[in-house]
This record gives sequence, C-alpha cells and structure tokens, in this order.
Amino acid sequence: MTENTGFEYLISLLEGRKFAKLKESLVKLNEVDIASFICEIDEENRLIVYRMLPKDISADVFSNLPIEVQHFIIKGISDKEVSLIIEDLFVDDAIDMLEELPATVVKRVLKAANPDTRELINRFLKYPENSAGSVMTAEYIALKKHMTVEQAIGYIRKNGVDKETIYTCYVTNDTRVLEGVVSFRELIMNSYETTLEEIMDTNVIKAVTTDDQEEVSTAFNKYDLIAMPVVDKEDRLVGIITVDDAVDVMEQEATEDFEKMAAMLPSEKPYLKTGVLRLAANRIPWLLVLMIGSMFTGGILSVYENAFAALPILVTFITMLTDTGGNAGSQSSTMIIRGMAVGEIKERDFPRVLWKEFRVALICGAALGAVNFVRLEIMNPGNTLIILTVVISLYITVILAKTIGGLLPMAAKALKLDPAIMASPLITTIVDAVSLAVYFRLAVMLLNI
Amino acid sequence: MTENTGFEYLISLLEGRKFAKLKESLVKLNEVDIASFICEIDEENRLIVYRMLPKDISADVFSNLPIEVQHFIIKGISDKEVSLIIEDLFVDDAIDMLEELPATVVKRVLKAANPDTRELINRFLKYPENSAGSVMTAEYIALKKHMTVEQAIGYIRKNGVDKETIYTCYVTNDTRVLEGVVSFRELIMNSYETTLEEIMDTNVIKAVTTDDQEEVSTAFNKYDLIAMPVVDKEDRLVGIITVDDAVDVMEQEATEDFEKMAAMLPSEKPYLKTGVLRLAANRIPWLLVLMIGSMFTGGILSVYENAFAALPILVTFITMLTDTGGNAGSQSSTMIIRGMAVGEIKERDFPRVLWKEFRVALICGAALGAVNFVRLEIMNPGNTLIILTVVISLYITVILAKTIGGLLPMAAKALKLDPAIMASPLITTIVDAVSLAVYFRLAVMLLNI
Repeated sequence: MTENTGFEYLISLLEGRKFAKLKESLVKLNEVDIASFICEIDEENRLIVYRMLPKDISADVFSNLPIEVQHFIIKGISDKEVSLIIEDLFVDDAIDMLEELPATVVKRVLKAANPDTRELINRFLKYPENSAGSVMTAEYIALKKHMTVEQAIGYIRKNGVDKETIYTCYVTNDTRVLEGVVSFRELIMNSYETTLEEIMDTNVIKAVTTDDQEEVSTAFNKYDLIAMPVVDKEDRLVGIITVDDAVDVMEQEATEDFEKMAAMLPSEKPYLKTGVLRLAANRIPWLLVLMIGSMFTGGILSVYENAFAALPILVTFITMLTDTGGNAGSQSSTMIIRGMAVGEIKERDFPRVLWKEFRVALICGAALGAVNFVRLEIMNPGNTLIILTVVISLYITVILAKTIGGLLPMAAKALKLDPAIMASPLITTIVDAVSLAVYFRLAVMLLNI
Repeated sequence: MTENTGFEYLISLLEGRKFAKLKESLVKLNEVDIASFICEIDEENRLIVYRMLPKDISADVFSNLPIEVQHFIIKGISDKEVSLIIEDLFVDDAIDMLEELPATVVKRVLKAANPDTRELINRFLKYPENSAGSVMTAEYIALKKHMTVEQAIGYIRKNGVDKETIYTCYVTNDTRVLEGVVSFRELIMNSYETTLEEIMDTNVIKAVTTDDQEEVSTAFNKYDLIAMPVVDKEDRLVGIITVDDAVDVMEQEATEDFEKMAAMLPSEKPYLKTGVLRLAANRIPWLLVLMIGSMFTGGILSVYENAFAALPILVTFITMLTDTGGNAGSQSSTMIIRGMAVGEIKERDFPRVLWKEFRVALICGAALGAVNFVRLEIMNPGNTLIILTVVISLYITVILAKTIGGLLPMAAKALKLDPAIMASPLITTIVDAVSLAVYFRLAVMLLNI
C-alpha cells in the first residue's frame, strides 16, 4: 500500500518555518492525509497550517479532522471563516460535527451559516440516532424524466460541483416524489437524444428516513450500491446515503456486536477518546449481572459440599469442565450470532442450524472425552469411576453447551431481542451451572457419596 | 427498506406456466433479486428461468448466484452458452466461481472461453489467497495523459460498456506504468479541451498485487474510495478493486475475527454451507488446547485439597471468581483487539491503553467487590475472614484480569501474531489459573488452614 504515514519531511519544513515549500508539498497530498498531518503537529501550528490550505480543499480537510481538532480550529477562526466552512461542508459531515460540539459553539456555527443552510441543518439534526435520516446528506442530483441525456449531462456539469456524488442521479416529479434512478454510466452510454424516462430504472432500492441504518448498510452490501436515496413517508426524496457512510455504519455495527458479545454496553466514541469513568460504567452492569448469575452456580456447588469434602479430587476438575463448556457454547453462539448479523442465517433455518450444532457437538464431545480419558488413565490410574464421571460429564456438558449456545441467540431473534447479548459471557454463566449440576449429580450416583 | 423478498406472485406465475408474464415481471427486478428468486424455486425450474433472461442481464444474474446453483446451471447448458457466460463475467467473479468448482468443470469452462479470456483467467488464478491480486478484476478504463477530456469521454463511451467501473479512470504510459488517476467527475466538470495531464491526480492510493486484502479494505475506508488500482512490482497497472469487493473483504475479515475470538479456526465457506465434519474440525483444536490449559488450573486446585477439605464453603466461590475474572479480562481484550483491527489503537498507544485499563479495573473491581461484600454479609453473616478472602480475591482478580486482557493482545501485535487469538477463551483460561492461585493463597494466609 502507498498510504502516507511518515510526515518527517513536512514537519521539518514546518519547524524550519519554510511555509511556501510546506504549502506546495501539502496540496499534493490526499485530504485525508493532510488531516492526519494536522493532528500530528503541535496545537499552536494547527491553525497556521489549516489557514495555509487553498479554499477548495480546506472544507474536505476539515471534515476529516477529529472533533476535538475541529473544535480547536473553530475557536481560533473568525465568524466569516466559520461561515465558509459550514457552507462548504456536506450536510452529513456538518451534522456529525454539530452533534459533538458544545451547545455554545453550535449556536455560533449556526449563526454563521446562511438561513437556508441553517434551516437544512436544523431539519437534519432532528432525525433519530441510528436512522437512515441521521446518516444521509442533502447534496444529490435530482433530474426530471422528460430531460434528454444531453440536458441531464449539461445540468450535472453546471450543478454537480458541490454534490456528494454525481454517479447516481435521481428522477423526481414536481412534488419531489422519487420516480426513478439513472446512473451516470447509463447517461454516458446512451445517445444524447434519449430521454431519461426511457433509460431510468423505476425499481429503486430506497430507504425511508426512519429505517434502521443497519438495514441500509446491509442493502448496500447486498445490491453493491454506491448511493441510496432516502425518502420521507410520502415517498418524497429528502437525501441520499453514499457508500462511504454505509461502510462506516457497517464497521460501527460490527464494533457494537463485538462489545455486546464481550458483555459491554456499546460505546459511542472510539476507545482512546472514551474516559475511564465512561468505560467503567459501560462494563460494570454486565459484570454485575453475570457475577450474580454465577452465584447461583455457587449455590449448586454448596448442595454438594459433602461430596467434595469426601472426595476433594472432584474439585480439581471443576474449571476444566466449566471452561470447556463455556468455550464449546460460545463457539456455537458466535457462529450463529454472526450468521444472523450478515444475513446468512434466517429464521426459517433455525431447525437446520440446531440439528447441525447437535451433530457437531457429538463429534467435539467425543474427541474431547477421548483425550481426557487417555490423560486421566495415565495420570490417575485405577480411579476408573472418577474418570468415568469426569469423561461422561464432559461429554454431556459439550452437547448441552452447544445446544444452549445455538438455541439462545435464535430465541432472542424470535423474541425480537438483539442476539448479540446471547454471547460467550452469558452462555458461559448458564453452561457453568448446568455442567456442574450434571457433574455432581453423576458423581453422587456413580461414586455413592 | 424496499427490498424484494416475497416472490409469491412470481412463483404463482411459474407454477401456472405463464412464462411470458413471468419474464416481463422478472426483468423489472434487480439482478440480485432475480438471483434470489432462482435460488428460491425448485431445481427443475432453475434452468427454465435462467434461459428466459435477456442476454444483457443473464451474466449479472449468474454472478450473483451461489456456487452450487452456478454449478447446476453449467451442468445443464451447452458449451456455447457456457462460453457466453464466461466472456460476459468480470474476471473477479469468474475467478470466485472457478476457485470453487470441481476440476473437471473448471476444465470445461476454460475450454469454452476464448484464448485471451483463458490466458487472463489463468494469470489471475495464480494470485495468492487473501492478496490484493485475488480480489481485483481486469475490466478498467486506462487512458493516456495527452488525451483531452473530450477524447477521454469519447473513449469511455466506446469502451466503457463492459468495464466494472467507469467512475475512476487510470492514466498509464506506453508500458502500462500507472501515472495518475482521474475521476469521471473531474472529466465532466472540466472543459472539453483540458488534457488529462492537467487534471489527473498523480498521488495515487494504490495496492501491489501481493498486498494483504485486509490492508486494501482498510484503505478504502480511510480514503472513502470507490475503486483502487492494483499494480505489479514494476508499477504496471494490472487490475482494479471496486468498493463492493472491498466491502465483502471487510465483512469477511470481521467474521474471521469473530471466529478466532471464539476459539475457532476461520471457516472458508458460510456456516450453512459448511459440513458438520468441517465445523467440528475447525472447533476441536482450540477446545483441546484450552482444555489442556485448564488442567493446569486443576493442578493448582489440587495443591489446596486440604484447604477445601477443611473449609468446603471455599469451593462454592470458585465459579464466581473465575467467571468474573474471565469476563473482566475479555472485556479488555475485546476492546483492544477491535481497536487495533479498525486501526484506532496503534503500537505507540500501548502504554496509554494499559494505564487506562488499569484505572478502569480499579473502578470495576471496587464496584464488584462492594456488591459482593454486602451480599456475603447478608447471606453469611459472621464469617468475616472468609468474606474478606473472597472480596479481596475478587478485587485482585479483576485487576489482574484486565491487565492480562489488555497486555496479551498488545504483546501478540508486537510479536507480529494475530491479536484476535488473545480473546475471551484464552484470557479466561489464563485468568482462571491466576485468580484461583490468588484466592487459595489468600485463604491459607488469612484463615490459617
């Protein structure tokens, strides 16, 4: 890969105050890399470098800066400069920024915007979090169906400069109702006299503002889209979502699943930007719930105090049984949670999946049981009944663990809960209780204690 | 969302043998949905429906079919029809299919292709799995820098029909060395006389064929690309990767991380298409390793047999301690593994991260310890020393768990290993041993047993 990661040369120019040379090198870089460079350097130099940028790229660079640096720059520049930024930003980038800034700064920014922009931003700020409306932007190309290809291309050449994408164009009627979609590719591949009505696709994959952003990103992936129109309840076009934002949603949703599956509340900000107290607050609730859950397992154990007072060796197998059960169960739940998240496993597949997990469990249980049997015969020869107790318990544990690990995420889905909470930690806690109950019940029966 | 998922009407047309009407309804659908429809219906009807499709969309539909259905269709059609498909498919889709088909079928397909296509496919089949070369395609637009915008647009109109994207065009010299990139947007926004040399961007974000596909998809996300050129070691353009394929890679890599983090070997095929034996084979190795690991914990326990023979109540806290330690540790490791995977946490951040985890651990440990203290005082009043042993052990366990959970993924990264293996299962096994050693050591000291 040829990403720009080393900024030593640029920093040496900055430190040597060779600003003309620095500017010349900077403008050759990608906007994303210029933003990374601004983050790399000392605070006192950030404004100097930002002001050095030509007007046509400064908003792009600004939209790629992290929120703290955006805040820092806004504090340091004039209202006129703020106004230039806010008019140049795409609405979705402006919204992302405004949602994170302190209220007083938001007020100043909105005051600097012109009335139309302000009205648009205020409208977009109202869409609920995680909805299609909250990730869309307003800068799209809307055409009319009676236009010819030549007229459409002319329109795009004139109006496309500040649009987020020109590659997918939307055809709307006089009341802004979405009638069709036409890709720039279709425009350019057809003769100039063709009307849009002849070539537009009326079967549009679209989202409603209130749709969940996760569904939107799934549809991008399924249909290989580069943009998707967003309509209101009356089917009027209000915005578009571009593939780069859909990709961000996809990554964010995967991160949320990782967090939920490791017994955490999903965090809103990246790890390094989340404070220690916030991190702890996200982690404590599930740790508490699971700790209280595993006290029940302690309760099961206390029933058998006589058993392990008589045969203390039984205790030494507890962690092996519970760990193996937990691992076997979370393998199953993880496969199924992920399969459902990427849309591969659907509700109608549930019986098939459960039957599959059961057969996999028979094989895994047999393999682990066999290895354990051999090991125990070598290390504790003669204790056949104890060995049998451990091996049979292990076998039953693996089968129960995989069945529970398979069943719970599907049950959650059927109950419209998020399957991701039925992951490793919860499965482990449940399987612990079940496996130890089996183990000691079996011990009491086989060993007569 | 307005995806097409219900095919009842189409199926009723098929069952009523109303083929003209069926065809009329089908061609209005998106190719992805036509492919879904073909998967829904009985095998004997699949060929009938496939042959019904107009030539200009049949290859698109074909590339969206799962491999078994592709195989089924190839078996049922003539060599001439096979040849039409293989000439119409983009190389990346052809490669995806050929890599999964049985050798005899591959032979037949390659024989049906024309010599140029065959040579191209054979070359592409040689790129190593998971490399940039293995996901790229050959259908791109290559322009020359002396062309004017008008000439370039003319060239694209003539040659763009069978290109995977026309929105990003590449400028190469006479020996195919990549000199720059120009977006269709820049072409259309500039006057027709401008030469490409004036507007092309020479700072190209590109991949080498041998680069890891994961790095490629990370760069797509970072730079919001819709296509990326792939060059060979001599910087000659050999293919492009489009954003839809980068998104597939992203999803596939996240799935692999989920699998590794739940102690499984990554699977090559989707869950429902993987056999029971293969699933079991992916799961048994780590289950065995971890089971053997937890036998060491059993070893630690056996040292303290006298302790719990004297005080069996100590045993009832084992699962609570090990589960909580495991959960606390996997919270930390998950956050850090994911942070590294999305590129947020870099090696230089390691000391900061560790210090953060340590402080989070102090808070989490205190909260859990306090709740446990209150519960134990209510349920086991009077046993102050035992209660102290449990609460102090819990506190130390949480701190050690989070430190180990934070440290191991970073150590793996520093050693160029995949951090994802340092996830919940392994952390749990290690933390189990540590927490029980602490617990019983403390019990022996405080309780004089």
